[in-house]
Amino acid sequence: MTRFKLTVEYDGGPFVGWQRQDNGPSVQQALEEAIEAFAQEKATLFGAGRTDAGVHASGQVAHFDLAKEFDAAKVRDAINYHLKPLPVAVIAAEAVGGDFHARFSAKSRAYRYRIINRRPPLTLERGRAWRVSAPLDHGAMAEAAGILVGEHDFTTFRGIACQADSPVKTLDELSVTRTGEEVVIAVRSRSFLLKQVRIITGTLKLVGEGKWRIADVKAALDARDRAKGGPTAPPEGLYLVEVRY
Amino acid sequence: MTRFKLTVEYDGGPFVGWQRQDNGPSVQQALEEAIEAFAQEKATLFGAGRTDAGVHASGQVAHFDLAKEFDAAKVRDAINYHLKPLPVAVIAAEAVGGDFHARFSAKSRAYRYRIINRRPPLTLERGRAWRVSAPLDHGAMAEAAGILVGEHDFTTFRGIACQADSPVKTLDELSVTRTGEEVVIAVRSRSFLLKQVRIITGTLKLVGEGKWRIADVKAALDARDRAKGGPTAPPEGLYLVEVRY
Repeated sequence: MTRFKLTVEYDGGPFVGWQRQDNGPSVQQALEEAIEAFAQEKATLFGAGRTDAGVHASGQVAHFDLAKEFDAAKVRDAINYHLKPLPVAVIAAEAVGGDFHARFSAKSRAYRYRIINRRPPLTLERGRAWRVSAPLDHGAMAEAAGILVGEHDFTTFRGIACQADSPVKTLDELSVTRTGEEVVIAVRSRSFLLKQVRIITGTLKLVGEGKWRIADVKAALDARDRAKGGPTAPPEGLYLVEVRY
Repeated sequence: MTRFKLTVEYDGGPFVGWQRQDNGPSVQQALEEAIEAFAQEKATLFGAGRTDAGVHASGQVAHFDLAKEFDAAKVRDAINYHLKPLPVAVIAAEAVGGDFHARFSAKSRAYRYRIINRRPPLTLERGRAWRVSAPLDHGAMAEAAGILVGEHDFTTFRGIACQADSPVKTLDELSVTRTGEEVVIAVRSRSFLLKQVRIITGTLKLVGEGKWRIADVKAALDARDRAKGGPTAPPEGLYLVEVRY
């Protein structure tokens, strides 16, 4: 038996999310079917992050086992061949030890949220970013982000369907930077709550628009109440960019 | 009468090109119909660059005249409203003098060609770049590009349907740079021949792959024969990024 680690990139637009579900095509299913097609073996894929419907990845990581022997580069190319024409690609494949687990061995996950801050609708970036019309003060957003860095009870920033045992998470990094009309929110943590990054983004956007002050973010965090947080930003701006082990 | 200058962005994928044609939807037609829908006036749009089918723009420029009076910001928003859901957007609109002509007043046009140099297929960048599998030596490409800078007879790099009076053009800039897996060819000239940037790109790719040496590019240029040039790179990597006046 060989365990393979995959680094996976995908456009989340056409999928119900990473995880297999009854209500439509998932990235996991697409990959499992491609693996089965080339290896002629059933395989179960374990992903590092269960991205929601419409959320993208440039650096998702997953693992699976095969009884037969295969060269890792062959595995990458064969899966990619069978994935066509779906917008999912294996960027890298490597054989790893049997103790590697894409989800449980992960030390941290990094996401980016892309906002295009302009009035005209998106064309080339449609489905790849959130267009926000009102001018955003990214300095204020960065300052507000500072309040959320570190260990906190993130109940306010937790999707209502979240099944995590604890709402306490530690954000190692949460930055807001602007390059031209693009505002990027970059965040890193060992793990995240359901929709946490999108609710943080929706909240920081209120600060950027001047509708919320920085103290309002602190009050929302302290309230430990989802109803006191900002709205959930749309999925198409979110990217799982890196998983560290 | 007021003349308006528009800066236009579009995903060229769904269009037969900038210019109105009988065989399908064009960007020009989409914009003219949007103008007519809001202004209740027929308008003819003149573009700075006639991008081919599938070629994108982040900075196309066009002008048109309206008999009625309109605020420029209103013109921008109203056209964008009527363009929905097409992937075309007016980024900026301004009233200009009657002597301004988007095509004939232009001092230079700048294009970028985006290559993603990797083996896995594209997902998030599909339709937005040319995926080239073989490793590209961008230093060699940049050196070869130097041969094409300046005034030359570009017959070798001219689409066979080109109707320009002269094949002599002057490239003010032609650079090749790499950032990670992305290789960008940036070019600026007063004007271009049909498919000139794509044939230059297809030729520089041969150099990057090591199939051509730099001397081969010189020989191809000197041959003044389209059959001696490299292949035409696909349209989806090409962007009209700026027009200067």
